[in-house]
Amino acid sequence: MPFTSRQVYLKSTPVGMPTDDDFEVREETIDDPSDGEVVVRNAYMSVDPYMRGQMRMNWKPGTALVGGAVGEVVASKNPDFPEGSHVNSNWGWREYYNSDGRGLAPVDASLAPLSTYLGIMGMPGLTAWGGLLITGEYKDGESVFVSAASGAVGSVVGQIAKIKGGTVVGSAGSDEKVAHLVNEFGFDHAFNYKTANPLDELQKGAPDGIDVYFENVGGEQLEAALTHMRPYGRIPICGMIAHYNDSDNPTPGPRNLTETIYKFVQLRGFVVSAFNGQQAEFRQEMGGWIRDGRIRYQETTFDGIDKASAAFRGLFTGVNEGKMLVKLA
Amino acid sequence: MPFTSRQVYLKSTPVGMPTDDDFEVREETIDDPSDGEVVVRNAYMSVDPYMRGQMRMNWKPGTALVGGAVGEVVASKNPDFPEGSHVNSNWGWREYYNSDGRGLAPVDASLAPLSTYLGIMGMPGLTAWGGLLITGEYKDGESVFVSAASGAVGSVVGQIAKIKGGTVVGSAGSDEKVAHLVNEFGFDHAFNYKTANPLDELQKGAPDGIDVYFENVGGEQLEAALTHMRPYGRIPICGMIAHYNDSDNPTPGPRNLTETIYKFVQLRGFVVSAFNGQQAEFRQEMGGWIRDGRIRYQETTFDGIDKASAAFRGLFTGVNEGKMLVKLA
Repeated sequence: MPFTSRQVYLKSTPVGMPTDDDFEVREETIDDPSDGEVVVRNAYMSVDPYMRGQMRMNWKPGTALVGGAVGEVVASKNPDFPEGSHVNSNWGWREYYNSDGRGLAPVDASLAPLSTYLGIMGMPGLTAWGGLLITGEYKDGESVFVSAASGAVGSVVGQIAKIKGGTVVGSAGSDEKVAHLVNEFGFDHAFNYKTANPLDELQKGAPDGIDVYFENVGGEQLEAALTHMRPYGRIPICGMIAHYNDSDNPTPGPRNLTETIYKFVQLRGFVVSAFNGQQAEFRQEMGGWIRDGRIRYQETTFDGIDKASAAFRGLFTGVNEGKMLVKLA
Repeated sequence: MPFTSRQVYLKSTPVGMPTDDDFEVREETIDDPSDGEVVVRNAYMSVDPYMRGQMRMNWKPGTALVGGAVGEVVASKNPDFPEGSHVNSNWGWREYYNSDGRGLAPVDASLAPLSTYLGIMGMPGLTAWGGLLITGEYKDGESVFVSAASGAVGSVVGQIAKIKGGTVVGSAGSDEKVAHLVNEFGFDHAFNYKTANPLDELQKGAPDGIDVYFENVGGEQLEAALTHMRPYGRIPICGMIAHYNDSDNPTPGPRNLTETIYKFVQLRGFVVSAFNGQQAEFRQEMGGWIRDGRIRYQETTFDGIDKASAAFRGLFTGVNEGKMLVKLA
């Protein structure tokens, strides 16, 4: 029998901060699978800052939104994905979907909780791992500064650097999150960027300078990092969350790019697709750390597809600690 | 018999644009060489934008200035540098000097005019060559944008890219210089940054985007370049001439660093010392181009050490076309 599903569409292109009115939830019918097909019921979907850029650049009004999701095969005529097995896909923002199997990846729910495949074992984890180790060319024992450090990416960046013997400084937007960085995630130093002076804090936390600044926010923190970078330092630019909604008045860039010159510093933009070829290596290393209890993760979960747009907006107002998820089933 | 020499000292740390009062010319006596020593009479000295940074960061008032110079050995008790031979050194800003030979490099005046060893065969040439090919990872046939393109570095960057089959767009500060870039240096397109819109000009000159932006100036041109960069583009940051004197009101940085993210663009600061190990390779390649008449260069020469500070200031007001030199003998 067919499945009744709900699915989120983009109603209008958000200007500045998105509102509920920019989204629309429609009910649809998902047919039983034909030969070679499966029907998947999503268990969790992911909301991520990069989607804000997609809404501006690629997703037009009327588009059915997509994004990371993990779910269970509830009907199958495809032997690769038997009923009861679990899959990762880019078919988020909906409760059920029909697929011929392309773009689905099997997920081993016994290895780690299903939801982690949207977080530390999924895109945010890979972003942190690849951004720090590949784009950032991190070497064991170096010092790292990460902004938006309590997020799904930042908290993993800091923990990887600690596992690899580094000194780690992080920033976050509340005293509670700051305490968490030190007490839960083992950061050497952390500060509240809303009340502290970033350069002072960097000097406190990493007196000899920073080798890698994992850049998430731009603005004053990027300037402080440039000033405090060590020679040959690297700045992977992961995504400037704080600026994504500044459509009318973009925040000025760093006034001190000249700092890069005499220190041979590099800045390099990236998105997670850069590391598609290193997925297996990543899962092996990260899976080991999770099993050994060497790495911690947090999740903030909104319940039900009607809360998807609220969860998405929450990314830009600092609602979440760790990975922001929507539970769908 | 001893030599009477004049030598420039820094009298005060320049604030904003340097003035004549920041410098002082003193007369000194240079003794005849002792065993192992030589006396060199400088023929030309170089003034360069990087010196502005040194005056802020490293050279205190009372310091005898240094910088690139090429001259003739006029008295020698060192068999490595016989009388009548020529040498390159960092002992500029003076007419004569005494040396035990350390830091001197022999120069073959029959290969190329003496003055070129301060320009296209010297530091600016190596800066252009290394900044484009090494830091900028330029590949044959790619498109290049270079700002401050009529300068000693920029004009060489553009010509190297043309020799290597590329499309080249340049900017300069007057219509005369712009015409020169196209007519003399063979640029595909050039524009006057004081009157034209940089992004429009880049779209005209390189419709498919830019692979390498050789960054000399910051500001609006850097923003336009970021917008018009192609995926995996590189931005070697050579030295932001336009910003060096903004001690009180640094120009805002680029507001669109997020452009780097989805295009995997990198920015990387460098100074010429990065390429010290590639000097021989550089001289061989550049010497060949000069001998084959494939590369052109310009010099602007001020006469006499009393004009040294005027020549230096001229770097920041656009007086020079090509390498700025002071003729000392």
